[in-house]
Amino acid sequence: MKNYLIILSLLITFLSCGEKTNSNSESNLLVSTSEELQDAIKNAQPGDDIVLKNGTYTDFEIKLVGEGTEDKPITLKAETPGKVFIEGESSLEISGNYLEVSGLFFRNGHSPKTNVIAFRTSEKEVANHSKVTNCVILDFNNLERDQDNLWVQFYGKHNELSNCYIAGKTNGGPTVRVDLKGNQSIRNYHKIVNNHFGPRPRKGGARGETIQLGSSFTSMSPSNTLIANNLFEECNGEVEIISSKTNFNIIKNNVFYKSEGSVVTRHGNYVTVDGNYFIGDGVNDQYGGIRIINTGHWVINNLFYKIKGKNFRSPIAIMNGIPKSPLNRYNQVTDVVVAYNTFVDSDSPWQFGVGTNIAQADVLPKSEIRSARPLRTEVVNNVIYNSKGDANPIVEHDKADGVTFASNVIDNNGVEIKNSHGLIAKELALTDIGTGLSVPTSGFDDVEVYKGYDFETITADLLGNSREKSNQIGAILNAENINLNLLDKSKYGADWYSNDVEAKEAKTHTVANVSELIAKLKEAESGDIIELNEGVYEISNSLIINKSVTIQSKGNAEIVYSGAANTPAIELHPYGKLTLKGIKLKGAGSQYAFASLKENMSNHFGLDVIDSEISNFNYALKVYKQSFSEEITFKNTSISNCENGIELSEETNDRGDYNTEYLTIENCQFTNVKQNVIDYYRGGYDESTIGGNLLVNNSTFTNCGAKEKNGILLNHRGIVNVNINNNTFKNNKVQFVSILWGAKNNVESNNTLVNSGKIKTEENLKQKLMY
Amino acid sequence: MKNYLIILSLLITFLSCGEKTNSNSESNLLVSTSEELQDAIKNAQPGDDIVLKNGTYTDFEIKLVGEGTEDKPITLKAETPGKVFIEGESSLEISGNYLEVSGLFFRNGHSPKTNVIAFRTSEKEVANHSKVTNCVILDFNNLERDQDNLWVQFYGKHNELSNCYIAGKTNGGPTVRVDLKGNQSIRNYHKIVNNHFGPRPRKGGARGETIQLGSSFTSMSPSNTLIANNLFEECNGEVEIISSKTNFNIIKNNVFYKSEGSVVTRHGNYVTVDGNYFIGDGVNDQYGGIRIINTGHWVINNLFYKIKGKNFRSPIAIMNGIPKSPLNRYNQVTDVVVAYNTFVDSDSPWQFGVGTNIAQADVLPKSEIRSARPLRTEVVNNVIYNSKGDANPIVEHDKADGVTFASNVIDNNGVEIKNSHGLIAKELALTDIGTGLSVPTSGFDDVEVYKGYDFETITADLLGNSREKSNQIGAILNAENINLNLLDKSKYGADWYSNDVEAKEAKTHTVANVSELIAKLKEAESGDIIELNEGVYEISNSLIINKSVTIQSKGNAEIVYSGAANTPAIELHPYGKLTLKGIKLKGAGSQYAFASLKENMSNHFGLDVIDSEISNFNYALKVYKQSFSEEITFKNTSISNCENGIELSEETNDRGDYNTEYLTIENCQFTNVKQNVIDYYRGGYDESTIGGNLLVNNSTFTNCGAKEKNGILLNHRGIVNVNINNNTFKNNKVQFVSILWGAKNNVESNNTLVNSGKIKTEENLKQKLMY
Repeated sequence: MKNYLIILSLLITFLSCGEKTNSNSESNLLVSTSEELQDAIKNAQPGDDIVLKNGTYTDFEIKLVGEGTEDKPITLKAETPGKVFIEGESSLEISGNYLEVSGLFFRNGHSPKTNVIAFRTSEKEVANHSKVTNCVILDFNNLERDQDNLWVQFYGKHNELSNCYIAGKTNGGPTVRVDLKGNQSIRNYHKIVNNHFGPRPRKGGARGETIQLGSSFTSMSPSNTLIANNLFEECNGEVEIISSKTNFNIIKNNVFYKSEGSVVTRHGNYVTVDGNYFIGDGVNDQYGGIRIINTGHWVINNLFYKIKGKNFRSPIAIMNGIPKSPLNRYNQVTDVVVAYNTFVDSDSPWQFGVGTNIAQADVLPKSEIRSARPLRTEVVNNVIYNSKGDANPIVEHDKADGVTFASNVIDNNGVEIKNSHGLIAKELALTDIGTGLSVPTSGFDDVEVYKGYDFETITADLLGNSREKSNQIGAILNAENINLNLLDKSKYGADWYSNDVEAKEAKTHTVANVSELIAKLKEAESGDIIELNEGVYEISNSLIINKSVTIQSKGNAEIVYSGAANTPAIELHPYGKLTLKGIKLKGAGSQYAFASLKENMSNHFGLDVIDSEISNFNYALKVYKQSFSEEITFKNTSISNCENGIELSEETNDRGDYNTEYLTIENCQFTNVKQNVIDYYRGGYDESTIGGNLLVNNSTFTNCGAKEKNGILLNHRGIVNVNINNNTFKNNKVQFVSILWGAKNNVESNNTLVNSGKIKTEENLKQKLMY
Repeated sequence: MKNYLIILSLLITFLSCGEKTNSNSESNLLVSTSEELQDAIKNAQPGDDIVLKNGTYTDFEIKLVGEGTEDKPITLKAETPGKVFIEGESSLEISGNYLEVSGLFFRNGHSPKTNVIAFRTSEKEVANHSKVTNCVILDFNNLERDQDNLWVQFYGKHNELSNCYIAGKTNGGPTVRVDLKGNQSIRNYHKIVNNHFGPRPRKGGARGETIQLGSSFTSMSPSNTLIANNLFEECNGEVEIISSKTNFNIIKNNVFYKSEGSVVTRHGNYVTVDGNYFIGDGVNDQYGGIRIINTGHWVINNLFYKIKGKNFRSPIAIMNGIPKSPLNRYNQVTDVVVAYNTFVDSDSPWQFGVGTNIAQADVLPKSEIRSARPLRTEVVNNVIYNSKGDANPIVEHDKADGVTFASNVIDNNGVEIKNSHGLIAKELALTDIGTGLSVPTSGFDDVEVYKGYDFETITADLLGNSREKSNQIGAILNAENINLNLLDKSKYGADWYSNDVEAKEAKTHTVANVSELIAKLKEAESGDIIELNEGVYEISNSLIINKSVTIQSKGNAEIVYSGAANTPAIELHPYGKLTLKGIKLKGAGSQYAFASLKENMSNHFGLDVIDSEISNFNYALKVYKQSFSEEITFKNTSISNCENGIELSEETNDRGDYNTEYLTIENCQFTNVKQNVIDYYRGGYDESTIGGNLLVNNSTFTNCGAKEKNGILLNHRGIVNVNINNNTFKNNKVQFVSILWGAKNNVESNNTLVNSGKIKTEENLKQKLMY
């Protein structure tokens, strides 16, 4: 016993000495200027902590180069996490080994480089075993939407992005990308974990992914990247939230919450999508699930809850490939496993042959025709529950003849299924597992579990319960005493930042004259209301909208604009989201009623015009190239005596871009608008940019289009979703009111056309190939 | 000490008991009929040996299904290895786990299935952890060349083909293939080791690989197949000896000996080609090295010795890719490492941009144009030794601007280099390492070794010496006391079989009349000579040639054939290789002088006609579809008064096939041959079937081609190598003597044309796309 104590005591002494030695060799260096930082980095030894003093660092380009060790990394951290603000033209680059950066807040600026954060400092100098953690990047957008960049780009191997909050990217380019060009970056085992990917607004075209793993050019490379335990909230940039383009990635235990897109195995193979939550609201049909292209993916243990996405966005979308596809197009789906997933109240969750376009063989080259159906694919051991029965849980856009269906159960609430592929009907009960999720976890234990090749590697369910001893179909084996709190944001992102906004009472500023109007508009906070007393407000300079604001009339207010020709009465700046309500807006013929900025639209705008009258302008609305609004609405409003109407047609690069996601015209009167009455353009053949939405409803167009050179009243070429219903077109001197794109979702109904040309449907539209 | 002894003795007892128990539970079952075998298989338990009694088994389809264990496999073996002959329509299929087959000899037959040996018994029932070893497959060809099959096809995982001798495949299809369709066969870690791949004759077109790993359709799959320690001897089937089409394969320590082809990373990525010997003879320019396509391959520690292959067959051929290539065409080369290789007396060993065809943009679709040059590729730490200096060790068919060259040394014996890319000139000494190989191993220790990413994983040299402590460039660190015996065939293949043939004195059979001629021809052994005394031999039935035989005249012998119209005087059967020497061969106008069989040409024939006179036939030579000869030669021979000449143009499938590898016409006189004077056809655009060789030299063509419908005297459309030199063409009523294919190796020189049309060169020939 005595000996034992001596040994123990010696051991403690020895360990303590070790510790002391460690801390002796480390330094904890507070820096507050670029020079001090550079010096500190230059001299950094393993174990050193370089501490950035609290404060704002503007135009600050950090290059952290160092050689830490596994036990003694070199760290660069904020004095107080969240109190070090990186602003202006700033960036962070890291290369070396075992480096850690934490606590920084990137805001009010953008990167002068192609990345905000790059895990390399030059093409050959990359980071390995390095980490960026507990940081925030917010709205750090380039000045123009077309100036693509990547906020975080991984190079090297074994790097980590963890516990960060990243949100608000509006310019082109994925938010986070893993680069695999070069042997220095393959088999990287990077980790993207515990982050909170906050709202990424709709981008209006492609290149708006939240995470992209590689590119088609490196789609043959083993990446082995892990994306786990992240919250994706309103990641609406484009149809792909995560675009996996390399091999052997693992996407596990993430929560996709109200995100308008899907996890897509776009290129590359053998990706595991395991135990994720896809949570919708049962209404929005933009929320998607998992879209499968290529070979060998395993989609297991996922829960789809009230996901209403269809076709490309359906919970499980298995695409058709192009036979012998070019590298950057669509390989055939083969050897894919879709097993042990649970689907609750998600419409037509299994869709096969998605993207088939055999019918478009006339307008597309052979190398674009997706006719190769999935092969050797297993859809097994899944559970579907529909509180409202679904006649078509399985949709075959093309035959699913290469798919094995087995041991799948459905509770369809008695509704007959047209195309069941052996779905076993059961009556199931739901169990509440928290986060508003109720799921079926029992009632199918009599269904024999299908055992495919290597299925023994699926060892656990969605909640981590072992499948080894007692197994059953579906994502969840057992939900007893489970109370998930998936949307508890403290579990994700930086511990010092929350994107929860306190509800705030909107403040109403009443104004009675122009100078008050201008002053209050400047003074108002986002969300406030400017209320105009009855009267005429004559302005000669544009009103600037650079926040969310409502301008409304109290009584009968009229704004008369006498500014220079081709300038707007109301100028929409980045973040400028205007609701105009009950206002008469008048020009002198040569100006614009509303316009975006010609350049530097570094963030989106918004426009909602209600109960108003727009008259005597050159343009009612002029939206310049690179400007984007998620929604533009005119409601109960008249537009009259204008040379041009609503103009959103400058995105002519034919790369799939457009100027607004939704253009809604409801209950409006267009009178004597001479040309470009509605001009809304999207160009480029891109089956996966499925955007652009035009709704024209209950409106009247009279004496419009007289000067329209192309003879079409409503121009919406390339817009994917068009609804023209219940309108009256009278005495418009055009050949066509509209030419609809039949192959897409372009429809009209119940329109009255008097002396106004015709509405025509063209099934297939010849489009420029984007790729 | 006493205790120790007791423990040891107990241990021995225990071990012995274990052994006894094992052998008690095993059975050793001798079977000799199909029924007995099936019974034995049905009842087989782990550890059982099923023994096939010595003898010949005809039309014997073996289906070995069983469940052995790692310690106790189920084996099926020959009573005496090599004394169990599997003949006729026979095959072997295996499924289950831990199965072993050994000692079988497949000969005198072919498989009724698509495989001779398959590691599966049905699409879903595959073998795992199973082995075929110490077996021989010899000439087990299908009856027709176009009846493709695979002699050994791998399915499942962890299977092995070892110590087998496999040779003589003449029909279409790789000799051995690893199949990866389905998750049951990926990450297979199959081993193809210690085999002797004996001669595979030229096939005359594509689909003649010795080993193929997957296919373009599974080129995204991880295969992890090992091909190691094999001898490849005269594997001449086509330009690819090993065609790797999947990922992560390892090709290590093999000997490629006088094999007319290359190791090709045709599809798939990240293949390691490490420590192989490529041994040529300094003359034959068909012996190749390693041809690289795609991403991430490592070509390290290889020795190239007297390899004279050029372009596609050069020691290191780095191809151009097709931008965004279709799945089955050519991906760009990226991230490839060519390091630590040694090249001795191998011409222009490094060739880049191989396969560039930008010049052919007019005749090829854009999706066929190989214009994408290699990227991020490193050619470093290599050593070149040329006993005769080479002005162009580096050939750039297209710019090697994406290649890093570093730390490469050359001893060029004083000859200046035009395009050195930093090659460091040294004077080097050679060391004899056995097998006739002399290599430079020192003289460059002052050259700093280039260290690329992950180069630390190259831990040993070609001979297994560690690179970790003292390293230098080149394949061999140190060759002291090394005496390799790479061509000792006892190290490879089945231990009971050798392909060494004892030299045998050719026996001469002298004959004086027709019946003797017929009798002796039948009686002769392969290699014998039939000598005809002076005189006229009138025959009315075809002489059958089904072995290697020479028919020659002693004095002045004449064979006159009076058989049926359109039958041959001399009929060439499978294996029939005839040398005809000094014979006058006469027909009666309607017959053929020589012809192959119309069907069932299950093996190649050969024809060498010297000092002879062929006259009065319908055809001098008629070769039917699916017949193939490696070489056909006419020398010092006249062909006169024939309706047709030499006819080798039935391979019109345009899949790259043709009827002879070499057609040589030397010092011959063609007189009054009315049409098809020479007809030799190869069709289909296939850049990698670089075959067909026509040599017409020192010959005279007089009054020929009068009835030729296409107006061309020498028809050789699609033949890649054509040499027409020093000939005289007189009074041939044709428009063209020849139309040469300029983009390929078609040349003419020093020909005299009198009243015979012209020779024209067409740079680009429009060909049907094969893929």
